[in-house]
Amino acid sequence: MGVLGKTVTRTASLTGLAGAVLLLATTPARAEVSEETAFVFNTFAFLVSGFLVMWMAAGFAMLESGLVRTKNTATICLKNIALYSIAGIMYYVIGYNLMYSGVDGGFFGSFGGFYNTSDAEVALLGADEATPELIAAVTGNGYSVMSDWFFQMVFVATAASIVSGTLAERIKFWPFMIFVVVLTGFLYPIQGSWTWGGGWLAERGFSDFAGSTIVHSVGGWAALVGAIILGPRKGKYGADGSVHPMPGANLPLATLGTFILWLGWFGFNGGSQLALGSALDASAMAIVYVNTNLAAAGGVVAAIILTQIVYKKIDLTMALNGAIAGLVAITAGPDLQNHFLSILIGAIGGVLVVFAIPLFDKLKVDDVVGAISAHLVAGVWGTLAVAIFGGGDFVVQVIGIIAIGAFMVVTSAIVWLVLKFTIGLRVDEEGEEMGLDKAELGMEAYPEFGHGSQSL
Amino acid sequence: MGVLGKTVTRTASLTGLAGAVLLLATTPARAEVSEETAFVFNTFAFLVSGFLVMWMAAGFAMLESGLVRTKNTATICLKNIALYSIAGIMYYVIGYNLMYSGVDGGFFGSFGGFYNTSDAEVALLGADEATPELIAAVTGNGYSVMSDWFFQMVFVATAASIVSGTLAERIKFWPFMIFVVVLTGFLYPIQGSWTWGGGWLAERGFSDFAGSTIVHSVGGWAALVGAIILGPRKGKYGADGSVHPMPGANLPLATLGTFILWLGWFGFNGGSQLALGSALDASAMAIVYVNTNLAAAGGVVAAIILTQIVYKKIDLTMALNGAIAGLVAITAGPDLQNHFLSILIGAIGGVLVVFAIPLFDKLKVDDVVGAISAHLVAGVWGTLAVAIFGGGDFVVQVIGIIAIGAFMVVTSAIVWLVLKFTIGLRVDEEGEEMGLDKAELGMEAYPEFGHGSQSL
Amino acid sequence: MGVLGKTVTRTASLTGLAGAVLLLATTPARAEVSEETAFVFNTFAFLVSGFLVMWMAAGFAMLESGLVRTKNTATICLKNIALYSIAGIMYYVIGYNLMYSGVDGGFFGSFGGFYNTSDAEVALLGADEATPELIAAVTGNGYSVMSDWFFQMVFVATAASIVSGTLAERIKFWPFMIFVVVLTGFLYPIQGSWTWGGGWLAERGFSDFAGSTIVHSVGGWAALVGAIILGPRKGKYGADGSVHPMPGANLPLATLGTFILWLGWFGFNGGSQLALGSALDASAMAIVYVNTNLAAAGGVVAAIILTQIVYKKIDLTMALNGAIAGLVAITAGPDLQNHFLSILIGAIGGVLVVFAIPLFDKLKVDDVVGAISAHLVAGVWGTLAVAIFGGGDFVVQVIGIIAIGAFMVVTSAIVWLVLKFTIGLRVDEEGEEMGLDKAELGMEAYPEFGHGSQSL
Repeated sequence: MGVLGKTVTRTASLTGLAGAVLLLATTPARAEVSEETAFVFNTFAFLVSGFLVMWMAAGFAMLESGLVRTKNTATICLKNIALYSIAGIMYYVIGYNLMYSGVDGGFFGSFGGFYNTSDAEVALLGADEATPELIAAVTGNGYSVMSDWFFQMVFVATAASIVSGTLAERIKFWPFMIFVVVLTGFLYPIQGSWTWGGGWLAERGFSDFAGSTIVHSVGGWAALVGAIILGPRKGKYGADGSVHPMPGANLPLATLGTFILWLGWFGFNGGSQLALGSALDASAMAIVYVNTNLAAAGGVVAAIILTQIVYKKIDLTMALNGAIAGLVAITAGPDLQNHFLSILIGAIGGVLVVFAIPLFDKLKVDDVVGAISAHLVAGVWGTLAVAIFGGGDFVVQVIGIIAIGAFMVVTSAIVWLVLKFTIGLRVDEEGEEMGLDKAELGMEAYPEFGHGSQSL
Repeated sequence: MGVLGKTVTRTASLTGLAGAVLLLATTPARAEVSEETAFVFNTFAFLVSGFLVMWMAAGFAMLESGLVRTKNTATICLKNIALYSIAGIMYYVIGYNLMYSGVDGGFFGSFGGFYNTSDAEVALLGADEATPELIAAVTGNGYSVMSDWFFQMVFVATAASIVSGTLAERIKFWPFMIFVVVLTGFLYPIQGSWTWGGGWLAERGFSDFAGSTIVHSVGGWAALVGAIILGPRKGKYGADGSVHPMPGANLPLATLGTFILWLGWFGFNGGSQLALGSALDASAMAIVYVNTNLAAAGGVVAAIILTQIVYKKIDLTMALNGAIAGLVAITAGPDLQNHFLSILIGAIGGVLVVFAIPLFDKLKVDDVVGAISAHLVAGVWGTLAVAIFGGGDFVVQVIGIIAIGAFMVVTSAIVWLVLKFTIGLRVDEEGEEMGLDKAELGMEAYPEFGHGSQSL
Repeated sequence: MGVLGKTVTRTASLTGLAGAVLLLATTPARAEVSEETAFVFNTFAFLVSGFLVMWMAAGFAMLESGLVRTKNTATICLKNIALYSIAGIMYYVIGYNLMYSGVDGGFFGSFGGFYNTSDAEVALLGADEATPELIAAVTGNGYSVMSDWFFQMVFVATAASIVSGTLAERIKFWPFMIFVVVLTGFLYPIQGSWTWGGGWLAERGFSDFAGSTIVHSVGGWAALVGAIILGPRKGKYGADGSVHPMPGANLPLATLGTFILWLGWFGFNGGSQLALGSALDASAMAIVYVNTNLAAAGGVVAAIILTQIVYKKIDLTMALNGAIAGLVAITAGPDLQNHFLSILIGAIGGVLVVFAIPLFDKLKVDDVVGAISAHLVAGVWGTLAVAIFGGGDFVVQVIGIIAIGAFMVVTSAIVWLVLKFTIGLRVDEEGEEMGLDKAELGMEAYPEFGHGSQSL
């Protein structure tokens, strides 16, 4: 975001952070925050922001638990904790380097795996005495390398979380997990390297502050392709074009999940300033927090008013998806200095989701939780909004959206199809009717609660 | 709180923070924390404390979801996410300036809306180079202006959250939302300006560290007046004076909500130190955390022991309300240096709530979640406790309680009555019996769970 | 942990923190972070880490709420909020001083209770002017004393939380609470003083970074002895050696609880670096976050794969316990610089829990939530892993495990037995069958949900 003096990548060597560090050497008065103090601030900001984004994994788990039917609830819980675990391991084993090491304007980084802490930090930690030289070798990087890894890792988990909701209630556990392995180890990092790793899209000036496209649309594309290849749930769409509602079993949990996501998003967007160790960075982070909150609020209010007008009833799940759509929409450019625009961007996200969800149903794309609408559609909107309100280049934004979309559609289609024609993607009809909890896990999420007739 | 060297307002120009900044200019050795470093600390403390208080919105949502009956659960979820959204927008559009801009010992601030970041921050963020002059212009304020806005905004949302619980299960959605618009845009900011904005109560020395009166009693008064005007739920009170229990449908959620509130309260009270950038502020914040925790613990233990003695059974919801009452009670003065007093103040809060809840029932004031007892009664107690234990002036504390109470009773009565006699406040009898979820939203919170006979 | 240059105790006078402070005096260039700035960092790190660990109390409450049957759910909620409250009060009244004041290589600290803030901080807070002398007297301690108290207090609550899950569904409320009083006021602090208080185990070099043994095994031992003395739930074990499953009533809540624990563990382990105010400490904290996350992920993946292989089904509760076991296992040594080892240590924890849970069932030790397996077994493993992978002394680690285990077994057996033969530990048969909620609380956790036939 040019507005905040940030370049588009997320690598240390190119951010405003590094600019601050360079200034340090030449402008003594800038040294009000010492290099070591800034290092601590930047590192701690990554850790705090990172634990907030980690918490979003719980948000997705609760949102999806609340929006599936009881017979598939334990399975969606399991998928969510398993995908978060796999995402972390894969990003350690291969993903981080593929995204951030030696991209240099290209299409992917290094295949050298097992990202560990830097030699400089190892030397400092192991020294008998913390000499100025040892400290300077560490602080010159601007932040602790593993704090950055932690922050980037929780982002890849978010992308994977988006997929699980859309495909719930019919996809088998292990094929889904294999997709997560590929997504978090390869697909997400490769396209991420194009912009945040300093690849070809970064060189063209594609602007996506915290990932409307790079995280949310990426998850959304993978979910969309998966939903098409997997097909809708049995009984969801009638031969006559009718849509049979399959209401979520536990709406307070879905509400809780949305609040968790909202909270986590302060870390998601705020932490994407990538630095805290100067007045400039602290001011920018505060602005990002405010815009993030106002966009979500705009999405909720727009969705409520619109559903009241269109349907004469207010739909709680639409309000929740309105919040998420508002958050996704502001994610590409949460550094606006006129906060009213954030309300507007979020509200348009909320409007889009209210229309997109029935549209995908009309197209017989069965998205159990509305994730394609909230993450892909609102993500595209947010990425364009940067050009409209934030000074980004419209053509470049479109190029970024299309390039990343095309890559994700093609690669995830390949993975989904290979899985489909080898081990199979879908539980059998009997298992789907019985519910995945009994079919795949042999257990029930709510064994003591009587189940009403609405359960299909 | 005089004890910590803080004055009573929450504006930058009058706090201990500003004192520290002034000292900086004259006492070189005080400059151990540079002005820019202090700026970052103060800003980050607002953001971290603010996200904790934002999380309290989820706490209220879960508490209230757990304490209403299933047929009204989706509606209370919707109200909670909607009120948090509206609070943020209204506080941006009008509330913040009304509370904090140019109050100058008076009764309200500026009606100029749309609070945005400062010119100094815009200049720094947009500059090609962060010159010492640009930085100094920003850091002289002590903290990023939008970080303060964020922290103050989540407080107004808390006041609104208190109201929703009391009036659950019979108030219509839109009238409630209109009340929230008025409360968060006007009523809360106006009375808030009297003390925290540097208005007439601040000049008299009214002391309310984090808002036992200014936030919690304010919400409680609005709820009390609303409950009287709205009337009790159908069937709650028999003609013979009997009280029919209408037990909450999901007590683990209510427990979760209470834990969330407890966690958020560290931000609520701790962040109200309004600064972190010195040893004094850091020490004070640590003390506030400890007192906040001990007061809640005192409230729980008192409520448990008392219900065991009085009722021969321990009531979980009383224990939860004991925690909240303890937290509310310590909020006016969490800076006590003798932490034992915090346990005592919280325990008295817990005792009050155990007696207040049945008392309001006897008065046929139907408070679904006990919020009037936990927030209004304990809030009054906490505000008086400052005079008793913390060195505040008892008469001034009473004046503050009465003035704010009278203002809230009159103004919220006007708003509730206007709503009642125009669009109406209450769902019709059939809708109340059917439940608000079906009547207003056309959906069910738990569509698959069989509903037992206790559901009225 | 020698790797990070930390000594084994958690007292200020012996940590790396103090080393840094000492260096400050002699190495000017080390003063990049001023003493007061470091004080603020260290204090704020304790507060942020502390609120994360406090949040684990909610995690245990949700995990246990999800894994008990509906008829005992309100009671387990009450126990969890009550034990957290009691832990805080007892640690204030007696525990902290017993653990940290004047241990001096011995077996316990001071019996002087009521730990309050330091004279130096009181002087600074009460002064008309913050003079350099007053500030230096405060900052020389490295951190605010009450921030440390807060952080240590939430640890003792964790130990108590472990016990409540194991003994659920049959222990009476008040005897359990009396045990919590003894555990949090005396047993935990006494054994904690041996290592973290600078007692005899610290002098021998016992290494337990954040408490695999000192917190988790301690809770586990108390739970194990309690389970043996209390006996299994009625009907759990058949006379023929059969085990009757009593499935948890609400698995999404159990999943939520696990995610909460995972989040809180960043504070648990990360905060146990005990300092943030230098590049070294910030780097170390980042490494701890990463290892904590990877170990949990390793635990989940190992448990999933293993249950698939052994049982041909994936068990959600095993996956959740795998996460917890991974977290417990890494807790003794989360400062490893080769992060792959963390995955391995966590995975072994996950494997252990999958085998330990049925083993305890075979031994007719009825552990409702699997806490003995996840906290005691994995805790022992993690403490040994420090010697295997982290450079600790294997013999000393074994001595520490045995000494603490023996102390906890003997002392908690005495307390449990005294309670058993005085006021009694167990609800009567009728109460157990009816459920503790009705028997002890006179209420239901889910009064409107129909209860299926699986409820015993």
